[in-house]
Amino acid sequence: MIDVQSQRDHRKVVLDKVGVKDVRYPITVLDKVKEYQHTTATVNMYVDLPHQFKGTHMSRFVEILNHYRGGVSIRNYQEILATMRHRLDAQSAHLEMAFPYFVEKRAPVSQIQSLMEYRCTFSGSLGPGDEEDFVVGIAVPISTLCPCSKAISDYGAHNQRGEVSVQVRFRHFFWMEDLIAKVEERAINQVYALLKRSDEKYVTELAYDHPMFVEDVVREVYGALEEDENFTWFTVGCENFESLHNHSAYAFTEFSRVSAEGTDGAEISEAVAQGNGQGR
Amino acid sequence: MIDVQSQRDHRKVVLDKVGVKDVRYPITVLDKVKEYQHTTATVNMYVDLPHQFKGTHMSRFVEILNHYRGGVSIRNYQEILATMRHRLDAQSAHLEMAFPYFVEKRAPVSQIQSLMEYRCTFSGSLGPGDEEDFVVGIAVPISTLCPCSKAISDYGAHNQRGEVSVQVRFRHFFWMEDLIAKVEERAINQVYALLKRSDEKYVTELAYDHPMFVEDVVREVYGALEEDENFTWFTVGCENFESLHNHSAYAFTEFSRVSAEGTDGAEISEAVAQGNGQGR
Amino acid sequence: MIDVQSQRDHRKVVLDKVGVKDVRYPITVLDKVKEYQHTTATVNMYVDLPHQFKGTHMSRFVEILNHYRGGVSIRNYQEILATMRHRLDAQSAHLEMAFPYFVEKRAPVSQIQSLMEYRCTFSGSLGPGDEEDFVVGIAVPISTLCPCSKAISDYGAHNQRGEVSVQVRFRHFFWMEDLIAKVEERAINQVYALLKRSDEKYVTELAYDHPMFVEDVVREVYGALEEDENFTWFTVGCENFESLHNHSAYAFTEFSRVSAEGTDGAEISEAVAQGNGQGR
Amino acid sequence: MIDVQSQRDHRKVVLDKVGVKDVRYPITVLDKVKEYQHTTATVNMYVDLPHQFKGTHMSRFVEILNHYRGGVSIRNYQEILATMRHRLDAQSAHLEMAFPYFVEKRAPVSQIQSLMEYRCTFSGSLGPGDEEDFVVGIAVPISTLCPCSKAISDYGAHNQRGEVSVQVRFRHFFWMEDLIAKVEERAINQVYALLKRSDEKYVTELAYDHPMFVEDVVREVYGALEEDENFTWFTVGCENFESLHNHSAYAFTEFSRVSAEGTDGAEISEAVAQGNGQGR
Repeated sequence: MIDVQSQRDHRKVVLDKVGVKDVRYPITVLDKVKEYQHTTATVNMYVDLPHQFKGTHMSRFVEILNHYRGGVSIRNYQEILATMRHRLDAQSAHLEMAFPYFVEKRAPVSQIQSLMEYRCTFSGSLGPGDEEDFVVGIAVPISTLCPCSKAISDYGAHNQRGEVSVQVRFRHFFWMEDLIAKVEERAINQVYALLKRSDEKYVTELAYDHPMFVEDVVREVYGALEEDENFTWFTVGCENFESLHNHSAYAFTEFSRVSAEGTDGAEISEAVAQGNGQGR
Repeated sequence: MIDVQSQRDHRKVVLDKVGVKDVRYPITVLDKVKEYQHTTATVNMYVDLPHQFKGTHMSRFVEILNHYRGGVSIRNYQEILATMRHRLDAQSAHLEMAFPYFVEKRAPVSQIQSLMEYRCTFSGSLGPGDEEDFVVGIAVPISTLCPCSKAISDYGAHNQRGEVSVQVRFRHFFWMEDLIAKVEERAINQVYALLKRSDEKYVTELAYDHPMFVEDVVREVYGALEEDENFTWFTVGCENFESLHNHSAYAFTEFSRVSAEGTDGAEISEAVAQGNGQGR
Repeated sequence: MIDVQSQRDHRKVVLDKVGVKDVRYPITVLDKVKEYQHTTATVNMYVDLPHQFKGTHMSRFVEILNHYRGGVSIRNYQEILATMRHRLDAQSAHLEMAFPYFVEKRAPVSQIQSLMEYRCTFSGSLGPGDEEDFVVGIAVPISTLCPCSKAISDYGAHNQRGEVSVQVRFRHFFWMEDLIAKVEERAINQVYALLKRSDEKYVTELAYDHPMFVEDVVREVYGALEEDENFTWFTVGCENFESLHNHSAYAFTEFSRVSAEGTDGAEISEAVAQGNGQGR
Repeated sequence: MIDVQSQRDHRKVVLDKVGVKDVRYPITVLDKVKEYQHTTATVNMYVDLPHQFKGTHMSRFVEILNHYRGGVSIRNYQEILATMRHRLDAQSAHLEMAFPYFVEKRAPVSQIQSLMEYRCTFSGSLGPGDEEDFVVGIAVPISTLCPCSKAISDYGAHNQRGEVSVQVRFRHFFWMEDLIAKVEERAINQVYALLKRSDEKYVTELAYDHPMFVEDVVREVYGALEEDENFTWFTVGCENFESLHNHSAYAFTEFSRVSAEGTDGAEISEAVAQGNGQGR
């Protein structure tokens, strides 16, 4: 059978990314407490395509994903990228995954436990050459109480559900649970899947005592991440699903550590190696 | 060219609905204040298909929609259904539309104006025979403050954005604006696109003075719609995007007026006729 | 602490459904091949609320879900409903779950294996009294080639991705895998996560040899389900994401077995019991 | 009333973007044929926030949007940005809009007309200082037929709906209709809201005569945009909703014109000025 994809192309247009998008697949990721966590991911896999080739070989991407099924994790992310680049005979490879990540959480007073969902993203690339990049993202639901509403009202204050979105580049392996904890500690007003009445009283009064704008939340989380030398670059966004409006309030900022070290390929490999050692 | 759709089918399976789905089209609807409102709709159009025919003629649906473009409204809804049934040579026709509807709204203290979006749905059918049905739906964003949180806390009370979803069958034409007003009056704590600080103080205190569960909101709106003899059937749902949880609280109930009158075809025609007279 | 929810309500409005909506939780379901499958669900849990009570106790729903975590499956669906009804002191309970379900599938020629995602829904209710209901839904991606396009064109024929949606009520336990297989066999032109070139040639020619309208797909699947006496009621829908249009073609029909037996509570219990025995 | 937002902040964190997100508003844009087009937009409006201020004044954003209602268009995009920056007392302003844009289109043989929806985005920023940026995006639905499937199969070839996504930076005003036309001409296999049988035969055979991978589509559209000196920078993506798979095939590339001219502020202003002159 002829291989149309390998035919010569004469348009002289290099393609940055060619591959499969929105592949739905079950994957396994590392879990600080349970060691492993089964979840369901949406996956994009791309490589570059030199100008002289007509097309890439799409089925190989899913073969690779299928090979790593049941074991796709932060542990072998760069290994999958290397396999992609090798198998597709490419200069660079890109792998993006989005998946729900569940963490067991205790209510503040009753200590009753339930599972909270955090939406997580991995986005990595390899090449051309030794270039490596890996960005981990997490969306953390929070609650916020409006400082302006509290200050100007004789009683009460509007509050609402919000969401902090963090993206980080890093030097060494870290646990998602620790990043989530940093965000929740600084945002103060946390969200739970399960609260009893004693908890509800506690979180209601805690919120009234700690009013925060989206601006405040971003600055607090920024402070926590800036302190941690492991993060060489990060963005923090906070969206409030306003309870007085039908739209959101939003704040966002970006940080890049000014240092000679940077996040180079070696460090990312180290991070992944650490992950291997600690995680499994 | 042969007409494959008109070929005989021998499987003896009657199809309830055959047609086009998720057609995106600009439409015009009636507006109480401005007379007309331009909006963008997602449209489903179906007819039944007798067992002996292989297929329907899909292009005719879009031809009909295209014919009524710029003038698709509550005014000619039954007319479009009749055209569908006739042109497709069918026993019954179904037409569903979902579109954003914008209403100008004044802030409670500053009286500053802005536009609020309400998501609206029309769902009508005609046939077999004289059978007619028409259900109008509207989603109204609101704010709610938790009675339990207020009662058990020394200060403060969690609140959040919510959404009331109403579906109605009716006797006579009514304005969407009036249905929205009924919902907002009973839910008390309204949502706005634009509030100044004097408004924010007012709505914050108003909410603290009027705590409501989703259960309360549904019962209040139920009361308002039950009082209105024009509505022969309705459902009321309320969803709270809880600020302490990552999920929603929800309540729902259905009402059907027990009377000799019912919502028969004649009444719906009357409703539409009234709409014609009053609306344009 | 006062229990506001238990206070007396005087509006005399019974609520059909009160509870939690869009709870995201990891669950385990039965798998014909692997025994268990871990997946992630979106869950709604409701009970009715008599007119004299102000509110329900929302936290109990998540407690119940949390109790069954890691073991929520078709096996104990009615047991969860019974627990909900009992714990919430209600007349009726409703439990809805939507989750991706993955099945290993072989390519038709190369026999290479990969995982296909099918979107599955469970929707059950219990009460008032002994009333039981359980509807299982599955969305099966397929491919369709247009008979009209083939018939009128000198060569080629447009085809596209489609999706068959089936909902069933049933007498005895059945495997999701078997329902999916019935749909795929009758739709003929299947979809895969992974195909090699030999497979691509096969499915391309197979499609050209078996053109089908959405109407044909619905009638074929209808035939397969009607033959199976286990299904007492079902609906079949087919949506084609047309490749010549920016909207879908759609067909739908409903079947109810006319028999003295019906789907009563005892039979559903039997189905679940069978599930227990076979599945675990 | 105290102005909490204007209080001093001591955390020394500059925020890149603060404002409102997902505001739903009706807007009017320029239309090459009809002069104006009414549509419904989702709008994000942000400014930067210096480290010494606690918060921004969210209501002013909606006031500005409300002021320009009925006249928000490419004509006054930079003017709105300037108003935002001035009213919010900021160094930079960002305005993002996403809206459906409808264009009347003739079927290739029957010449029958219908409206096609294209999803359009505007994304502009102003500042700090004189810096200006404006990116226009458009999503164009197309159809593609697989060259590999055609080459290896004895008859037939799988095809599917696809979508080309283009983003451009530009020197002078251009009509959205002209950009859409460029994409559709090069992709060859177009999508329509309404086709008669004579059209269906034509487009079926046209597709069989012009098979294209996602890679081919991106390269063809790239060629068309590279030829047009008005575009100083662009990206082209193509996503195929594969008919043999449950995921998409995807290709993407980026172009930046190497020239002394660049896309500076003056040129964008010129583009907008041209828009004013020609459009209204």
